[in-house]
Amino acid sequence: MSVSTDMLFQTLSSRVKVPAGEFAEYAALTEERNYKKNEHVFRHGDVPRFNLFITEGCMRTYYVGEGGTERTTYFAEEGYWTGDLESMRSGKPTQQNLQALEDTTSVTLTRDKWENCYQKFAWIQEIHAIGQQRRAAKLSEHIGRLLTDSPETNYLRLVQERPRLLQRVPQYYIASFLGITPETLSRIRKKLSAS
Amino acid sequence: MSVSTDMLFQTLSSRVKVPAGEFAEYAALTEERNYKKNEHVFRHGDVPRFNLFITEGCMRTYYVGEGGTERTTYFAEEGYWTGDLESMRSGKPTQQNLQALEDTTSVTLTRDKWENCYQKFAWIQEIHAIGQQRRAAKLSEHIGRLLTDSPETNYLRLVQERPRLLQRVPQYYIASFLGITPETLSRIRKKLSAS
Repeated sequence: MSVSTDMLFQTLSSRVKVPAGEFAEYAALTEERNYKKNEHVFRHGDVPRFNLFITEGCMRTYYVGEGGTERTTYFAEEGYWTGDLESMRSGKPTQQNLQALEDTTSVTLTRDKWENCYQKFAWIQEIHAIGQQRRAAKLSEHIGRLLTDSPETNYLRLVQERPRLLQRVPQYYIASFLGITPETLSRIRKKLSAS
Repeated sequence: MSVSTDMLFQTLSSRVKVPAGEFAEYAALTEERNYKKNEHVFRHGDVPRFNLFITEGCMRTYYVGEGGTERTTYFAEEGYWTGDLESMRSGKPTQQNLQALEDTTSVTLTRDKWENCYQKFAWIQEIHAIGQQRRAAKLSEHIGRLLTDSPETNYLRLVQERPRLLQRVPQYYIASFLGITPETLSRIRKKLSAS
């Protein structure tokens, strides 16, 4: 096993029971892909060809609205999956953009191989179901919190849940994720560090 | 089949292949539950005991933030599932509130029966995976749109996607869902009807 697929195996095994022989078969279908800092994996309008598991580095998902406003909605660090599964599987162009924020290494699985593995391995179906259910729940909660709690509370929650993320990602992406301006975020940070 | 389970069968069959015999077995485990307008199914802090499929009426999911701010994040009409699957299955208290906006009839499945059916019927696993993947994608897009597009664009998108919803739900819930004040929504509607 390479260092990358080893991390994939650890992450999968922490959630479902993965037969080692089947994992080897699965891992043999994956490909490592590397991205430079700021490089895009796909942009709005593309149909993503593969799904990614990050083994080193960090990526952000963002939307571009009317007039070019950008909003970051998701950060994937080591041990996270990212991409746009719905668009990849359906073949409908994605509305998202996926960009590396650091030099990033990922283990990827192209669409046909993804579908074959999904049909073949029960543990993939299981981890997919668990993962998507959790993701839907997290997103629903995120919308609720973003729109009802104060920016300060939302910032403190992020500090607690993803301390490492805040150390590595530029503050304007954090502000964007929290739905506030960089100035507001800067004010919150100053206030908190003074108290 | 009752009228309620008939609608459930139609909805399921439009997405996956459901063996009629297995559906009968599944339907026999469901229970019809009725709610009066404004009645709550569960509140923040509860552990939901069942999941719901709406056959008549309409419900909203909402969050309550600090200081009591309320934000509606989801509307379930006829043919929609609702509840908090993640909380029901994990046993962790929900952060959501679920409330009937009209007299509502639903077909429900309690936790243990839900898990048994999930283990037993491959088509339930399939529809769950499809449904959660689509829901996660929709929520991700919703966050992106809400935060980047203008309130007018977001309102027009809702008009297009769910015309019936706008006829039946009070305007302040629609405004809440769009992340704007009722006054802003009223201004947008006035402007659009004048043009």
